[in-house]
Amino acid sequence: MLGRTYDREVCSAARALEVVGERWTLLILRDAAFRGSTRFSQLQEALGIAPNVLTARLEHLVAHGVLAVDRTEGHPRYELTPKGRDLVTVVVALTQWGDRWAAPDGPPIRYGHGDCEGPVHVVTSCDACGGSPPVEDLVAHRTPAMDKALARRRRAR
Amino acid sequence: MLGRTYDREVCSAARALEVVGERWTLLILRDAAFRGSTRFSQLQEALGIAPNVLTARLEHLVAHGVLAVDRTEGHPRYELTPKGRDLVTVVVALTQWGDRWAAPDGPPIRYGHGDCEGPVHVVTSCDACGGSPPVEDLVAHRTPAMDKALARRRRAR
Repeated sequence: MLGRTYDREVCSAARALEVVGERWTLLILRDAAFRGSTRFSQLQEALGIAPNVLTARLEHLVAHGVLAVDRTEGHPRYELTPKGRDLVTVVVALTQWGDRWAAPDGPPIRYGHGDCEGPVHVVTSCDACGGSPPVEDLVAHRTPAMDKALARRRRAR
Repeated sequence: MLGRTYDREVCSAARALEVVGERWTLLILRDAAFRGSTRFSQLQEALGIAPNVLTARLEHLVAHGVLAVDRTEGHPRYELTPKGRDLVTVVVALTQWGDRWAAPDGPPIRYGHGDCEGPVHVVTSCDACGGSPPVEDLVAHRTPAMDKALARRRRAR
């Protein structure tokens, strides 16, 4: 079995994938965010996945504070926390890519802005110039936090 | 073994995950985009993954047109295509989430805009009002393409 963690990586994308990188996880969050599916039975029926897989995914997401369990009435409800809601941007970014590159009939859903009903996209935004640079204009810079993490790792060896 | 596809889903996010949802894939694309790692040996050394896994991932990405192989000199180079570059937004969105929720020392890297060096983020953007709505204000609307796909599926049964 493949592991779930990326121990060698000093990388926030790797950290995120440790939480949401397993099969079905992002689709569970999609359904919680956009279909109001918060009960085990709703998720299981909508996704058609094996109950033991769904149980494992939900437990993992609750353990990481992405979902919170509400047991106040009937079967538990799995609700997105602020940490979980913040992952919706990833779901929208994935949808947008699929719409562009893997939707021959056109996008099956469209994300709208609740207030004004306008179509919503995920875009890059530069804090300095206010532009939306194409991704090929992005440069990854190491920060002091990276150096600190690497130094700690060397000491631990 | 878990499958790679989500056949029941009429969903662009699911289509995207069929291409990039497997373990390591998005980190391979990260390295191709930001570390200039385009050769098998560079990726293998940087990621420390089993060669057979890396081979499988690269073949899958090439088959889906996310990477193109350049064999003009020496060992092949795996270069992002436009379809692959378009996935960088997903990598940045994941990084941003990890920076916020799983980086106790602070972000280990920061994405800068090549032109002006400003920090770059991924944000929502509404085409109608120009605002950047919080994700809890997004609503998913079914489109005619969804109805078409569901009707085709019913006929196929």
